[in-house]
Amino acid sequence: MTVTLAGLGEAELLRRLARFAPPGQLADDTCTLAADTRQLLVNTDVLVDGIHFSDRTTSPADVGWRAVATNLSDLAASGAVAVDGITVALVAPGSTPWSWVEDLYRGISEALNCYGGILLGGDCSAGTEKLISVTALGRLGPLRLHRGDACPGDWLVTSGHHGLSRLGLALLQGDPTLNGTSALMEALQHQAISQHRRPRPRLDALTTLIENKPENLPWRAAGTDSSDGLLAAVQALCNSSDCGAQLTHDWLPRAEGWPAGELWDQWCLNGGEDFELVLSLPALWAQRWLEHQPDSRRIGCITAGSNQIVWSETRRPVTAAEFDHFGSALNET
Amino acid sequence: MTVTLAGLGEAELLRRLARFAPPGQLADDTCTLAADTRQLLVNTDVLVDGIHFSDRTTSPADVGWRAVATNLSDLAASGAVAVDGITVALVAPGSTPWSWVEDLYRGISEALNCYGGILLGGDCSAGTEKLISVTALGRLGPLRLHRGDACPGDWLVTSGHHGLSRLGLALLQGDPTLNGTSALMEALQHQAISQHRRPRPRLDALTTLIENKPENLPWRAAGTDSSDGLLAAVQALCNSSDCGAQLTHDWLPRAEGWPAGELWDQWCLNGGEDFELVLSLPALWAQRWLEHQPDSRRIGCITAGSNQIVWSETRRPVTAAEFDHFGSALNET
Repeated sequence: MTVTLAGLGEAELLRRLARFAPPGQLADDTCTLAADTRQLLVNTDVLVDGIHFSDRTTSPADVGWRAVATNLSDLAASGAVAVDGITVALVAPGSTPWSWVEDLYRGISEALNCYGGILLGGDCSAGTEKLISVTALGRLGPLRLHRGDACPGDWLVTSGHHGLSRLGLALLQGDPTLNGTSALMEALQHQAISQHRRPRPRLDALTTLIENKPENLPWRAAGTDSSDGLLAAVQALCNSSDCGAQLTHDWLPRAEGWPAGELWDQWCLNGGEDFELVLSLPALWAQRWLEHQPDSRRIGCITAGSNQIVWSETRRPVTAAEFDHFGSALNET
Repeated sequence: MTVTLAGLGEAELLRRLARFAPPGQLADDTCTLAADTRQLLVNTDVLVDGIHFSDRTTSPADVGWRAVATNLSDLAASGAVAVDGITVALVAPGSTPWSWVEDLYRGISEALNCYGGILLGGDCSAGTEKLISVTALGRLGPLRLHRGDACPGDWLVTSGHHGLSRLGLALLQGDPTLNGTSALMEALQHQAISQHRRPRPRLDALTTLIENKPENLPWRAAGTDSSDGLLAAVQALCNSSDCGAQLTHDWLPRAEGWPAGELWDQWCLNGGEDFELVLSLPALWAQRWLEHQPDSRRIGCITAGSNQIVWSETRRPVTAAEFDHFGSALNET
């Protein structure tokens, strides 16, 4: 017989969840973080069943991993050099099997073991749909990355390939769009599914960035992550910095074997959930980082004024395909 | 025409929510907290529509206030002497009117203005039901209150009356249980509804506790808040400290005009959501605190062994009425 959350009851559920935290960690009304001379970075992200994940394409362990990864990605894109941990608010129907929750927290633990930090605390409640709200806490290093610190003349660079997570989703969904593209290299398919299921927060790429700052330059760089897509990330830097940008089509950060064509360019630009760093850096710093960071890529440059993003080859606007959580939800209901 | 979240779209919603935070506070992927020599206290609580609040008894502004109050109450019950602020994850259907969300954040702002701290950051997403997950961050003072630090011989004390929030809910619901009790004093009714709608986190009572520690005593006290009811709070102290407790029936912390009778005793013991401090203190410290803290009350004492709570008058067990979020949700579906 399936053990459900309603069958367990709240007290037993909390007792079982405590096993995923250090002994005694969840014993009090709050948890304590040690005093530290470094500033604290805080981020909250919520993942909702049917919008950010679905049982069809994402195992509960992968949901847990992704909930951590999406939060730590924001910490990395802000300059966090150490992760304290996360709090987790879990909402799920009473009919949810305990095994689903156990796998979710297993995925959470795997991500924390990989990137640092512990399960600091949390809360749980019944609700009509499954969702998880995570708050991550980390420590700021010497470089505070803001979206609004880009300067004209900066190089635009990114820590990795884009579009893979979107391709992974299409492969997992058996998306008919992919018919006729069966010639996709097996390595690319594998890479795409892995990127969708187990995205990596790029704390490593931030470390390389800090290590490779030219001594004569100040700690000034702009950055964000590409959780909403590469183009959305560049647009966020432009809007916050009141600059424009040029992207170079030939430099689109495509993985090896990535096909040519409009669809594939769109997925690369607007696919989302790749969780790579997108940075605006002085040329010298960018060059050094590109040398030392595997798979990092130059994609364009920051220009003066207008908040507009154009192709460097044609000077024509780069078009976005907007994804709106609330709009899409309305369509579903 | 009603403006809904789907009508606004995510970008415009985020722009409007940013008005409830200091300028630029929500501009980056994360927010920063200043380095501080004091330890940080962290708490997460989630409030779900239909379980923790309902449109029938709670206005959206009151939901926002309560979401802050419930979190800050946990901070107070752990020893927080200053509040940094909160992050808010909001989930709501696309059909939710913007006015509901605006009122929610107005209530949040009112509570933060009252108790300190700012809207640090957050996230929002569509979902099938309204819920709000709040993470609060504060700074620890000289006294870290743990649940597990109670000692036999300690006095059990609390910062205020209990059962008022439950009575307030019954009044708002027009609970038939109240028929025949129309003689309830008007002042008590008003107090009960106010306690239900706008519960107070007792940061003030913690301050008094810190100020009144006898110099010769160490910083050792146990505490929690009575969010799940007075008896649940005492039980939590007993379980974590591996002690028992005696409650004195004559000392039940009833408000002025609180009727006698089984139902009223149960509401006082198990009503929940009163958000008072429940403390286990050395007698001398307790006496001084009771002298200086208006409405505080002695309710019993901590005893050796057994985790059992008995009435001091009869030595018979004090009975709990368990509330289980997941069980109750199962009954509803």
